[in-house]
Amino acid sequence: MSINRKQEIIKAATKSFSSFGYKATTMNQVAKMANVGKGTIYTFFKNKEELFDDIIMTLISDMENKALEAISSEKPFKDNLHDALYKMLEFRLEHQLTLKLFEEDKNFGTPIVQNGMKKLESAILTFIKEKIEKAIDKNEIKPCDSEITAFILLKLYIALIVDWEKERDPLTKEDISDLFELYIINGLAL
Amino acid sequence: MSINRKQEIIKAATKSFSSFGYKATTMNQVAKMANVGKGTIYTFFKNKEELFDDIIMTLISDMENKALEAISSEKPFKDNLHDALYKMLEFRLEHQLTLKLFEEDKNFGTPIVQNGMKKLESAILTFIKEKIEKAIDKNEIKPCDSEITAFILLKLYIALIVDWEKERDPLTKEDISDLFELYIINGLAL
Repeated sequence: MSINRKQEIIKAATKSFSSFGYKATTMNQVAKMANVGKGTIYTFFKNKEELFDDIIMTLISDMENKALEAISSEKPFKDNLHDALYKMLEFRLEHQLTLKLFEEDKNFGTPIVQNGMKKLESAILTFIKEKIEKAIDKNEIKPCDSEITAFILLKLYIALIVDWEKERDPLTKEDISDLFELYIINGLAL
Repeated sequence: MSINRKQEIIKAATKSFSSFGYKATTMNQVAKMANVGKGTIYTFFKNKEELFDDIIMTLISDMENKALEAISSEKPFKDNLHDALYKMLEFRLEHQLTLKLFEEDKNFGTPIVQNGMKKLESAILTFIKEKIEKAIDKNEIKPCDSEITAFILLKLYIALIVDWEKERDPLTKEDISDLFELYIINGLAL
C-alpha cells in the first residue's frame, strides 16, 4: 500500500511539473492530484526539492534505458554511438517534462530546475564518455580526450537536431548519421 | 563638414548602443552626444533602425577585415580557417557593442537587435562557406556541403570557446586548433 501511495505521489508530481513547471507546483496540488493527504507526501519526501530530484533521477534512468536499447554488439561503434546519442536527445526533445523544464529554465532561470537540467546533460555526457573510452580501449578509434569528445559530440548533435532547423529544412536521422561519420569519424582531409 | 557630422553621429550612436542597448537609445540622446541638432540626424538616417543597420554593417565589415588579416597564402588551409574563425569569434566576444546587443537579445528579444545578431552570424557563415568552397575546388579537403560544414564549424567553435569554459578550465587557442584538426580534419577513425 505504501509503495503504491509513493508511486501515486510521484505520478501526480510528474504530471504537475510537466504541466505547470517546478515553481508553480505546490505540495497541496500534488496531494490533491494524488488523492492523499499533504502529510502523507512528507512521509516520503522532505520537501518539493526532494520530490523533484527523485523524478529527475527516474527521468535520467528512463533516458539511459532508451540509449541502451539502441546499442547492439552487432553494429559498428559509430552506429551505436549515433543511435544512442540520437535517442537521448530525442527523449529530451519529446518528453513533456523536459520541455516544460527547459522553458522554465530559460524564462525564469529557476536554480533547482537549472540544476536538474545540468544533471540530465551530465548523464548524457557520462554515457557517451564511457562509450568513447571503451572504443579507445578496443582500438576502434584514435586515442583522444574522452571528456572533450563527449562534449563536442553532444554540442554537434544539438546543433544539427535543434539549431539547424530553426531556419532551414530539418535534417533526417540518416543525414545526421552521415554528417557525424564524415566530420568526426573520417574527417575532411583527403 | 557633412561627412564629419555623419561620422560624429555614427560614433555617438555606436557609443550609446554599446552602453545602453538599442531600446534605451533615443535619437535625442544621440544628437546630444554628437553635438548636433536632432533634425541633422534625420538628414542622414530616416530613423533609429536605419542608423542601427548602418552600424551593424560597419561592425560586420570590421569583423571580416580581422578575419582577412588572419589569412595568409603561406599557411595551410586548416590553419587559415582556424585563425579566421577564431578571430571572428574573438571579435564578437570582445567588442562592447556585440556584447551589449547579445545581452539585449537574450533578455528582451528585441526583434531589430535579434535581426542584427543574425546578420552577424550570417556574415561569419558566408565567410567560412566561401573558404570551404575554395578548399574543395583546390582539392584541399573532401567534397562536402559547404553550408552545413560552415554551420558545424561555427557551432563547434562557439561550444569550445564559450560553452566549455562555463564549467571547466578554458581551452587555449592552440588546444582548439588541435581539436579542430583531430575531429574535423583528420577524424577519429584509425
